[in-house]
Amino acid sequence: MTDELAASVHDAARRAREAAADLAILTRAQKDTALLAMADALVANSARITEANTDDVARARENGTSEAIIDRLRLDEKRIAGMADGLRQVAALPDPVGEIERGYTLPNGLEVRQRRVPMGVVGIIYEARPNVTADAAGLALKSGNAVLLRGSSSAAASNAAIVQVLRDATVTTDVPLNAVQLVPGDGHDAAKHLMRARGLVDVLIPRGGAGLIRSVVEESTVPVIETGVGNCHVYVDADADLDKALEIVLNAKTQRPSVCNAAETLLVHADVAATFLPRVLPALREAGVTVHGDERVRAHDPSAVPATDDDWSAEYLSLDLAVGVVDSLDDAVAHIRRWGSGHTEAIVTRSLEASRRFAATTDSAAVMVNASTRFTDGEQFGFGAEIGISTQKLHARGPMGLRELTTTTYVVTGDGHVRG
Amino acid sequence: MTDELAASVHDAARRAREAAADLAILTRAQKDTALLAMADALVANSARITEANTDDVARARENGTSEAIIDRLRLDEKRIAGMADGLRQVAALPDPVGEIERGYTLPNGLEVRQRRVPMGVVGIIYEARPNVTADAAGLALKSGNAVLLRGSSSAAASNAAIVQVLRDATVTTDVPLNAVQLVPGDGHDAAKHLMRARGLVDVLIPRGGAGLIRSVVEESTVPVIETGVGNCHVYVDADADLDKALEIVLNAKTQRPSVCNAAETLLVHADVAATFLPRVLPALREAGVTVHGDERVRAHDPSAVPATDDDWSAEYLSLDLAVGVVDSLDDAVAHIRRWGSGHTEAIVTRSLEASRRFAATTDSAAVMVNASTRFTDGEQFGFGAEIGISTQKLHARGPMGLRELTTTTYVVTGDGHVRG
Repeated sequence: MTDELAASVHDAARRAREAAADLAILTRAQKDTALLAMADALVANSARITEANTDDVARARENGTSEAIIDRLRLDEKRIAGMADGLRQVAALPDPVGEIERGYTLPNGLEVRQRRVPMGVVGIIYEARPNVTADAAGLALKSGNAVLLRGSSSAAASNAAIVQVLRDATVTTDVPLNAVQLVPGDGHDAAKHLMRARGLVDVLIPRGGAGLIRSVVEESTVPVIETGVGNCHVYVDADADLDKALEIVLNAKTQRPSVCNAAETLLVHADVAATFLPRVLPALREAGVTVHGDERVRAHDPSAVPATDDDWSAEYLSLDLAVGVVDSLDDAVAHIRRWGSGHTEAIVTRSLEASRRFAATTDSAAVMVNASTRFTDGEQFGFGAEIGISTQKLHARGPMGLRELTTTTYVVTGDGHVRG
Repeated sequence: MTDELAASVHDAARRAREAAADLAILTRAQKDTALLAMADALVANSARITEANTDDVARARENGTSEAIIDRLRLDEKRIAGMADGLRQVAALPDPVGEIERGYTLPNGLEVRQRRVPMGVVGIIYEARPNVTADAAGLALKSGNAVLLRGSSSAAASNAAIVQVLRDATVTTDVPLNAVQLVPGDGHDAAKHLMRARGLVDVLIPRGGAGLIRSVVEESTVPVIETGVGNCHVYVDADADLDKALEIVLNAKTQRPSVCNAAETLLVHADVAATFLPRVLPALREAGVTVHGDERVRAHDPSAVPATDDDWSAEYLSLDLAVGVVDSLDDAVAHIRRWGSGHTEAIVTRSLEASRRFAATTDSAAVMVNASTRFTDGEQFGFGAEIGISTQKLHARGPMGLRELTTTTYVVTGDGHVRG
C-alpha cells in the first residue's frame, strides 16, 4: 500500500514535469491570463470552498483543536476574496523568466547570456492556513513552475476544493491542467515520497514550524530551501538613540509576536543598561511581555524570570523576550552567532563604525540598522509577494519572491566555434 | 573509534567556523597577500611535496594502479609551479565579497542593500589529482571561506604535504591558520562525518566520478552542489551548415574525450541524415571513435555497434559516441530531456527559430548554438577559475567561479523605522 502511494506520488510528479516543460515557454501574458482566471474562479466558487472548509472546521472541533487554530483554518467570503486579490497582485508583478542575468561577448566572439528560467517542479510542504494553497500556486505559476502542494491534513477538504477550483480555471487558458496538483494520499507518508522524488522534483520548500522544517531537511534527497525559523535579536549599542531603541524593541517584540521576524532576544550594552533597562523593562511589562533576564537584568527588575540556555535559543512566537546585558558589540555578535537562527538581527546605534562592524560580523540573512526586525518580509522589501524567508545560505537567503523560484541557463551563441 | 573520528571531524569543522568569522572581514588585499605567499611557498617547498608524492606513487604501484592513473597522481616541479600559478591567477581575480547585488530605497525611506558575503565553511570531497587541493583552497580563500578538504586516500601523502605548506604560508599573513584544513581520518567514514556536519559546514561540493557524487547527494544532510556528470548532446538540425556541424561534432567528441563537457551523443535530423551521416561517420572512425548507432545510423554504416538504452544514458568519457536519427527538433529535445544529465547540449543550425526553440526547451545548464559543447567551462566563460560545473538548479547552474562560492545578506538601514 505504501508502494502504491509512492507510485501515485511519483506519477503526480511526472505529470508535473510534463506540465513544467509546457509552462517554461509560456509568455507572461499567457500566465497572467490564467492567474486572473483563477482569481475570478475563487470568488465565483466561494460557496463551494467555504462548504468544504466547514467540514475541516467541524473535524478540527471534534478533535478538540483550540479556537485560535480553528480561526486560522476558517475560510469565509472575505478571506477567499483576499486569496483572489493575492493572485491578481502576483499577475501584476514582472515576470523574472527571460531576464538576462549576465551577458557578454568572449574574446573569441562567443556570445554568453545567462538567462533566467523556471526551476521546473516545485514542491511545497506546509501546515499553515489554507490560503497558502492559492498563494503558493500563484507564485509557482507566475515563475513558470509546476507545483506539487502538500498541505496539512487538518485542511485537506479546503485545500482540495481550492486546488480543484484553480485547476478548473486553467481549462480555458494556455496553462496546462497539471501545473497545479495536490500531492495524493494522506499523512506523513505522502510527504515522505515527495521528499524522495529526486530527479522529478527540483526543489522542496517547507513552510511551517521548526519540527516540520527539520524533518524535511533531514529526510529529503530533493534539494530543500530551509525557511523561517526566527530567533531574531535586537542589540542596543552603547551609542544608541534610546528613544528609537525603545520604539524598535517594542515594535519588534509586540507588533506581531507570532511571526518569524518578531524579536525573541534583546541585548543591551552595559554602558547604557542602567539608563535603558529602567525604561524598556516597564514598557515591555506594560505591553504584556514576560521578560526572561540574565542576572544583570534581574538586578534592575527582580520580577524577571531567570533566563536559561533554553531562553537564548527559543523562538517563543509569543509575548516573551529574553533580555541580556553584554559588555561589547563583539560580545553581542558572539551571542547572536552562538544562539541565533540566522534570520534577522537589528542594531540600534548612532555609530557608523558600530553599524558596519555589526553588519559585517553577524552571520544572518538580514541585518537591520536602526529599524525593526519586522521589516524582513518579501512585501516590505518590495518583492510584491513572498514564498517564505530562507535561513540557509544556498540559492536564496532572506525573503524569497518570484526570482528565487527560478534558476538560470547559459545560452552561448557562436558561428561554428570549436575549442583549439 | 568511529565516534572519535566523528568528534575529530566535527572539531575541525568548528575550527573552520571560527576561522570563517575572521576571514569574512578580510580585505581583498589581505587575502591576495596570503594567496601569493602560498604560491611562493609551494614553489619553495617543491622538493618536500614531490617527496611525499613519491610515497603515494609507490603505494599506487604496489596496489597495481594503472599507469594512466599514476600519471594523474604524479607531481613534479613543473606541475607544482602550475599549482602556484593557479593561486597567482586567483589572486588577480576581482573579489566578489562586498559586491552589492541589488540596492534600492523603499517608499518609507529604508535603504535595502543585498550584499555579497562568503558562505562560511565550504567542504570539498574530491578524488581527482592532488592539484585540486591547492586550486580549491585558493578559490575558497579568495571568496572568504574556510575550506575543509577531503581528497582521495591514494593521494593522502601529497595532499597532506600541500596543505601543510599552504598553512605554514599563512602564518605571516592575516589569514587564520584554520582557513585551510584537511579532514582528519581516512576512508569513507571521515567523508561521511563531513556530510553529517549540518550547521557546521555550509555547503559540500563533490568533485569526481558519478559514484562519488551520487553517494554525497544521498548521504549528506549538509546542502550539496551536484557537479559534473555530463551526458552532452550535439543536435544537427535540418537547417544546419554541415561543414560547421562536422567540425563541431569532431571537436566536441575528440578534443578531450575524458572530460564532462565532451559530447556523448550525436542526434541528426532525418532530413540531413542521408547527406551528413556519410560524411561524419567515416570522419569519426578515422579519429578513432567507436560509433554506437540506432537502426537508421546502422543502415549507413553497418559496422556501427547497435545502440542500447545504456548508450543513450552513458557518460562514456572515452572515444565512443552514441548516434541517432530524429524526425524533428522536438524529438531531439525529448530525447535529450529523457536521457541527458542537464549539463550541455549543442545545436547546429542556421535557423533562428530552431535555435530559439532548442534553447528554450532543453532543460540544461548550458546550450551551445553553433559551438562545441567543450566551451562550458569556467575559464572559457571568463570566470578566471572554476570550482566545478553544477548540474543542479539550486544556487548555481553551469560553471561555478568565485561568485558561486558566496551568498548574500540584506543590510537594511533606517532611522528608527518601525512597522505600523
